[in-house]
Amino acid sequence: MSFKRPLILVSNDDGIAAPGLHHLVSLMREFGEVVVVAPDSPQSGMGHAITVGDTLRLEKVNIFDGLLAYECSGTPADCVKLAKHYVLKDRTPDLVVSGINHGSNSSVSVLYSGTMSAAIEAAIEGLPAIGFSLCDYSHEADFSHTFDWIRKIVRQALEQGIPKHVALNVNFPHSKHAPLKGIRWCRQAKARWQENFDERYDPTGRRYFWLIGDFINEDTGDDTDVWALEHGYVSIVPCKFDMTDYDALRSLRSWQLD
Amino acid sequence: MSFKRPLILVSNDDGIAAPGLHHLVSLMREFGEVVVVAPDSPQSGMGHAITVGDTLRLEKVNIFDGLLAYECSGTPADCVKLAKHYVLKDRTPDLVVSGINHGSNSSVSVLYSGTMSAAIEAAIEGLPAIGFSLCDYSHEADFSHTFDWIRKIVRQALEQGIPKHVALNVNFPHSKHAPLKGIRWCRQAKARWQENFDERYDPTGRRYFWLIGDFINEDTGDDTDVWALEHGYVSIVPCKFDMTDYDALRSLRSWQLD
Repeated sequence: MSFKRPLILVSNDDGIAAPGLHHLVSLMREFGEVVVVAPDSPQSGMGHAITVGDTLRLEKVNIFDGLLAYECSGTPADCVKLAKHYVLKDRTPDLVVSGINHGSNSSVSVLYSGTMSAAIEAAIEGLPAIGFSLCDYSHEADFSHTFDWIRKIVRQALEQGIPKHVALNVNFPHSKHAPLKGIRWCRQAKARWQENFDERYDPTGRRYFWLIGDFINEDTGDDTDVWALEHGYVSIVPCKFDMTDYDALRSLRSWQLD
Repeated sequence: MSFKRPLILVSNDDGIAAPGLHHLVSLMREFGEVVVVAPDSPQSGMGHAITVGDTLRLEKVNIFDGLLAYECSGTPADCVKLAKHYVLKDRTPDLVVSGINHGSNSSVSVLYSGTMSAAIEAAIEGLPAIGFSLCDYSHEADFSHTFDWIRKIVRQALEQGIPKHVALNVNFPHSKHAPLKGIRWCRQAKARWQENFDERYDPTGRRYFWLIGDFINEDTGDDTDVWALEHGYVSIVPCKFDMTDYDALRSLRSWQLD
């Protein structure tokens, strides 16, 4: 890092015009050369979707004051794939960051998160990766209390490195909790969304639904991301993409399958 | 199980008309009462996407010889949410099965898989869940060599239960490997897709891309799903949705973040 400026790839899931992305791009320019590849429209809740069986568009945009930037018709995971294998080609980014997401990606939301799917895709590719999210869904959210914490985290990531195939899931409390108390390394809380569906009828009389949900946290541990966020701390969960449940692997061998 | 017929929810990601779904529905009818909620169009590669910021449609269909069945405009995860909270309401399924997918969902493909996202969504809801996939992407794939194995696995799942919050990822070798050698409990192989993009131009001269990829397995273990499938065995990986990397959590505490 001391000899050449790091190359940082930035993506997100709220789309190329989202305020959270523009804040993250500005911060990353303090650290190195920045390339942006982001969805051309909001992709919240896309999980680790990729575009198969359909085409992808990728177009240069000039909305970041001279930076090389593209909008992509695909998902956040598509953006990272296209960035690595088409836009950057022979150049390997020193860091991939995604966000800042407008909304929490703590606990089980990591599975539904387009923001984290970009980071996890990068981790699969062997690249150091961080997803940043703010617990405020508003388009006009105040991100300013996150900036110094992002700088600290990115500085450590560039200096110390992130273990290979690990993506960091960083969440910030809402600005009403500012100033934040510090950073906590956490495990993913065992919480979930309790779903409900709002049933309505369109102008032609055909039924449709809106998904609504309440976040239910049954995990009382003080080492979880949900605990940290509720108590005014930045949470960082290191995530891996090996979903094997090794405990279950041992217990399930008792099945009679021959 | 001996007193009442189990209630089995069936979904998939290839859509309500896919042959693999119809095979799975027929097999499940041997075991109990079957309810089907599946996407109204193919959803391959959707990962754990959910529909937020858009409406959902759910319509009854009568293509399963008298079974209660719905097609849904959403993703596989949406289908399971709608099935549990709207279609079944106060009834809890004894098992949720997804598939049979036309194509492999071994190794890291579990992250991109709509089939497994339905199963994992069920596991998040605390329901016993299994995703079935065949290593043959063809719409006309021969599934017949999988039927007896599916019966064995479902019988054990209903009799012995599946640990709570675990979803089983079951993959079958292509029919050319039949008869299959047996079942192997496996961990997810540390393999990945090496992406490439096929660059083309549409009739108006605008550029577009097709995602293409080669599957690269750098994991030489004989306890992986990829190994089992390549050697003619059915693979079962128990999957969890806690993505925390606990090893990394310990090592990363050395970062200077104060």
